[in-house]
Amino acid sequence: MIIVMQLEATEAQIQEVVDLIRENGLEPLVLPGEDRVAIGIPATLSSDKRATLEAVLINHEGVSKVTQTSRPYKLASLEFQRKRTEVKVKNVTIGQGHFVVMAGPCSVESYEQFRLAADMVKATGVTVLRGGAFKPRTSPYAFQGLQLEGLKIIQQVGIETGLVTISEVMSGDMVPLVAEYVDILQIGARSMQNFPLLIEAGKSGKPVFLKRGPSSSIDEFLLAAEYLLAQGNPNVILCERGVLPIDKSYTRNTLDLSAIPVLKEHSHLPVIADPSHGTGVAKYVAPMAKAALVAGADGIMVEMHPFPKHALSDGAQALTPDQFAQLMSEIKNLAGHVGVKMG
Amino acid sequence: MIIVMQLEATEAQIQEVVDLIRENGLEPLVLPGEDRVAIGIPATLSSDKRATLEAVLINHEGVSKVTQTSRPYKLASLEFQRKRTEVKVKNVTIGQGHFVVMAGPCSVESYEQFRLAADMVKATGVTVLRGGAFKPRTSPYAFQGLQLEGLKIIQQVGIETGLVTISEVMSGDMVPLVAEYVDILQIGARSMQNFPLLIEAGKSGKPVFLKRGPSSSIDEFLLAAEYLLAQGNPNVILCERGVLPIDKSYTRNTLDLSAIPVLKEHSHLPVIADPSHGTGVAKYVAPMAKAALVAGADGIMVEMHPFPKHALSDGAQALTPDQFAQLMSEIKNLAGHVGVKMG
Amino acid sequence: MIIVMQLEATEAQIQEVVDLIRENGLEPLVLPGEDRVAIGIPATLSSDKRATLEAVLINHEGVSKVTQTSRPYKLASLEFQRKRTEVKVKNVTIGQGHFVVMAGPCSVESYEQFRLAADMVKATGVTVLRGGAFKPRTSPYAFQGLQLEGLKIIQQVGIETGLVTISEVMSGDMVPLVAEYVDILQIGARSMQNFPLLIEAGKSGKPVFLKRGPSSSIDEFLLAAEYLLAQGNPNVILCERGVLPIDKSYTRNTLDLSAIPVLKEHSHLPVIADPSHGTGVAKYVAPMAKAALVAGADGIMVEMHPFPKHALSDGAQALTPDQFAQLMSEIKNLAGHVGVKMG
Amino acid sequence: MIIVMQLEATEAQIQEVVDLIRENGLEPLVLPGEDRVAIGIPATLSSDKRATLEAVLINHEGVSKVTQTSRPYKLASLEFQRKRTEVKVKNVTIGQGHFVVMAGPCSVESYEQFRLAADMVKATGVTVLRGGAFKPRTSPYAFQGLQLEGLKIIQQVGIETGLVTISEVMSGDMVPLVAEYVDILQIGARSMQNFPLLIEAGKSGKPVFLKRGPSSSIDEFLLAAEYLLAQGNPNVILCERGVLPIDKSYTRNTLDLSAIPVLKEHSHLPVIADPSHGTGVAKYVAPMAKAALVAGADGIMVEMHPFPKHALSDGAQALTPDQFAQLMSEIKNLAGHVGVKMG
Repeated sequence: MIIVMQLEATEAQIQEVVDLIRENGLEPLVLPGEDRVAIGIPATLSSDKRATLEAVLINHEGVSKVTQTSRPYKLASLEFQRKRTEVKVKNVTIGQGHFVVMAGPCSVESYEQFRLAADMVKATGVTVLRGGAFKPRTSPYAFQGLQLEGLKIIQQVGIETGLVTISEVMSGDMVPLVAEYVDILQIGARSMQNFPLLIEAGKSGKPVFLKRGPSSSIDEFLLAAEYLLAQGNPNVILCERGVLPIDKSYTRNTLDLSAIPVLKEHSHLPVIADPSHGTGVAKYVAPMAKAALVAGADGIMVEMHPFPKHALSDGAQALTPDQFAQLMSEIKNLAGHVGVKMG
Repeated sequence: MIIVMQLEATEAQIQEVVDLIRENGLEPLVLPGEDRVAIGIPATLSSDKRATLEAVLINHEGVSKVTQTSRPYKLASLEFQRKRTEVKVKNVTIGQGHFVVMAGPCSVESYEQFRLAADMVKATGVTVLRGGAFKPRTSPYAFQGLQLEGLKIIQQVGIETGLVTISEVMSGDMVPLVAEYVDILQIGARSMQNFPLLIEAGKSGKPVFLKRGPSSSIDEFLLAAEYLLAQGNPNVILCERGVLPIDKSYTRNTLDLSAIPVLKEHSHLPVIADPSHGTGVAKYVAPMAKAALVAGADGIMVEMHPFPKHALSDGAQALTPDQFAQLMSEIKNLAGHVGVKMG
Repeated sequence: MIIVMQLEATEAQIQEVVDLIRENGLEPLVLPGEDRVAIGIPATLSSDKRATLEAVLINHEGVSKVTQTSRPYKLASLEFQRKRTEVKVKNVTIGQGHFVVMAGPCSVESYEQFRLAADMVKATGVTVLRGGAFKPRTSPYAFQGLQLEGLKIIQQVGIETGLVTISEVMSGDMVPLVAEYVDILQIGARSMQNFPLLIEAGKSGKPVFLKRGPSSSIDEFLLAAEYLLAQGNPNVILCERGVLPIDKSYTRNTLDLSAIPVLKEHSHLPVIADPSHGTGVAKYVAPMAKAALVAGADGIMVEMHPFPKHALSDGAQALTPDQFAQLMSEIKNLAGHVGVKMG
Repeated sequence: MIIVMQLEATEAQIQEVVDLIRENGLEPLVLPGEDRVAIGIPATLSSDKRATLEAVLINHEGVSKVTQTSRPYKLASLEFQRKRTEVKVKNVTIGQGHFVVMAGPCSVESYEQFRLAADMVKATGVTVLRGGAFKPRTSPYAFQGLQLEGLKIIQQVGIETGLVTISEVMSGDMVPLVAEYVDILQIGARSMQNFPLLIEAGKSGKPVFLKRGPSSSIDEFLLAAEYLLAQGNPNVILCERGVLPIDKSYTRNTLDLSAIPVLKEHSHLPVIADPSHGTGVAKYVAPMAKAALVAGADGIMVEMHPFPKHALSDGAQALTPDQFAQLMSEIKNLAGHVGVKMG
């Protein structure tokens, strides 16, 4: 942490800051400049102590600015863990060197619909089946999912097809229930900072698929992952699913593809892109999916629906079976070209 | 809903859209223009049906654009309920014609700290005492609140001082617990779309103080309120607490004061401003608090701390007791001038 | 500037950074931490040299992060000039202790319309008359202003009414022309970083009213002012006119009122708020205008039109003469209460 | 345009709106709903008339909402011109089926530096050479470019190497000068709505490379292109160069790659991506460049510098010659794979 003093800060004010830092058991380094003084503190404070001390210093007389110099996350950091995480679920490996496709309908609507979707995606080489049982919906009047019945359908179809399953859990108290029926717990973008949920999902030990909030910084995203890791659960998968757009009139979100190399540089966790939510429009899913692959993503999550025109939720972004098969063919071809193994 | 057809849409495509709308039991109105056709649907669809139908139509051949014409919320709307809501909690009325100040420390840190803060704010005329027992923190390493012990302190200090109390609840399963100890349930900005929490808070019947998410639209905010109202709980208070800023280097958020007249125009619910989180900087709290008053807010929530330099959380934005007393004096003076009753 | 080294940075890498700083004629201070090293550089570099050196250091092996510690603007800074600027134009003083209202139609449409507007606003106590002759319009098909004819009308009406006039100039080569006809040069939000324009406006010596760009940071805004000041022109007035909104469906922009105390804290220049563009909706202008006053603004710019329903541009945000007179009455009343002198 | 009336709108108010539309020479269609009335206007209004009428209607008694149904741009639209534009400059074709790489240093610093850069990029197969002579810089203290001397160097190096050249022009009055020395006029992101510049660049007839502003919507971007096209200049190239990021701490901007398929769907103009400004960090340029290619871009603009550590501007995002050669090799390989012709 660096404290920059005001131009007109007095000697007494500088000394007070130095004393205050020493009272906290730290050794300040005073950096006199030509016109103002800066004071450095070694970057070894705990996050908690750092935030507390920063608050005190910002309000101190004579202080102009306080600047953090280190990253606030630790367990999620590639500096801390040099070996990249591979999450293994049944016969599927997510991480370094593999490219996984998670696909399926937005919502589980019936056994027939979900089984049909599962067969269709499996036929194209997909290994992870997605489907919502509990649906977070902006409006209380929108379809809220089949709930427990949906979970049972997911489990059954997972067993029948041998696909790994993933579904969203919306609150901490529902973690044990959802964990009983599905292979991977999904935490949605709007729940990224639902801390009680993060703690329970962390405790469950299950693989967790964590979506970035639409206005979350990279640090906030990795600190949410840190909540999961801090519970002793190493099986964390990050997902970039689009940030708040400048312009909502053509796409629902802006898929922040540069977050992929940023996250891969700073964290050892696998990174998946979700071009379906990232654009919100079926016809933009394929170009963004391929872009994610070459940008270094470890996989994609894509919504498809046997009959998108009759989907109960998010039909506008779901691919038809034909469109999805076409996408998979292009993805496999491209993965082969760039030397990434599917699945 | 209005469906705008593409320039080159064929007669057959137009007819298919018309048929599809009729299949949904609705009567379309075809508006031929000079160069393209638009098709109107009466604005009486349920939100759910509307979203589903929109998705189908957007993907239909020949369709250029689908536009919603009506607002998606209903119970929260001033068109639906012409009488403005007044939330009564003990001897305090929140809403039209009153200006309530909710104040206290970010976190409850000890009985002594909280009692001292309570006495200080009460002495200035405050009627609602805030304090966090369960704290949502970006980092798992930051102080997480005294939790149950904190709730007990809040209850005790509330009884001793006669102040109405408010504290945050972070998950649906904790609603009964928090509701037992405090008078008003606070739902934080990061929980605005925690739908299981909204449903439980709605069911509790307790007054609920709902903070706007940092990147939430007005419609999303009022739909979150709609979740509460749809459970039969009319005691909902809205809070504008700052949106994602263009520039994080001087303020933590941008307090969107124009949301106050916007919300008052479209909803009957009371609207409170939070200049502490809205700016994140103690010295900007007073100007923004006064600005909120003249912009038509029904009150403010302000963080103060007996000793901000030793606060365990958010010290940078907490007012000192002197600063707070000065603010209250200015607020009372201004309220008198603009003809608003305190408390 | 502070350079934070990576956890695993070698002694050789640290030495290379130290040497590189010394090659630039600066004396680095090495701050060893428990787990990593930081290196400080005194904050006395020129902005240019700083940016260049930062780029080199960021790409250097072993470097994790480079952080600036000082503000990039100087002439605009209150640290540099302790006396607050007062801009005097004819009999009007803009700055500290005065509250100026600049009002008039968006566009000058005819002598009759503009003279009528001028008489109306003058009758309410307004001292500065605004009106666009050259109009920056998003669409090439929208009304582009009366141009030279508009300037002549502005000059004539200014002489006839004794009002100070302000109008926008859109390019550097038009500064001499506009400066000949109007008293204050307005630089619009979309031109805030039109550097050739800033340089010419600076050179003209005329008072310049500089609007903040809709996605500009405070530093970028003050650096644009710095361009004007660096030409030796001290007569600079800042204007907050709304930033990119989270939600465009209720307001055109989000008026960032906290920018007022932020700018007043860091700069000596007067700050005006524009609630007309800041909201884009006539009915929200009055609450935001009053909020700006109590937040510490030195004045407001407001659009009014004798007949808003027939305005050729921005009619949605223009007040009617009655609404404007009502606003002025409230503003004068409030200014009296908070101890600010009108005009 | 659709006018939605308020729930409680009276018959008289509805009739007034109908009359007002007829006064404008248009024929309204009244759409009675179950609870409220909507009124449609054929989508054949000019943009100007539409904006004016919208403003009137929004303020009309009984009106709840006014919604536009059509796109505001015309000449730039793929509906208007079905044949995709190919911009031919000397022996280079920009558009459909080609993938052009524009590369070179941010600033021209000397003949030696620029010639060296030109030789290096030419050796890798680049056909368009970029380099700034006039530099828009946020700070007046930053290096402003070699200006006229820079233009002369660009021209000379263009002749010597046979490369097509591109350089930025910052104001309308400088268009003739810059057009004399370079092959393609670049309009920077901060100038996207510098309308006098757009008009002069349009009149010049020269190919124009138009960068999207950092907070511009797609419609605003295409309307800026419309300004160029409306002058009779068909040689317009669009460039996505990054929008305002959620998080500035890891990248300078967020490259909005979904804008590529969006623009290709709605416009016939070629679209180039600029991953250098889009990320601001050299190590993220390669993944984003490849992502742009597979997302459907017609080319990329990339900054490289013979010695980035000594660059006078934007060194942090410039590739070294080795990094650039590696990128070109990967791009050519990928272009071959996806069936796009280089250059």
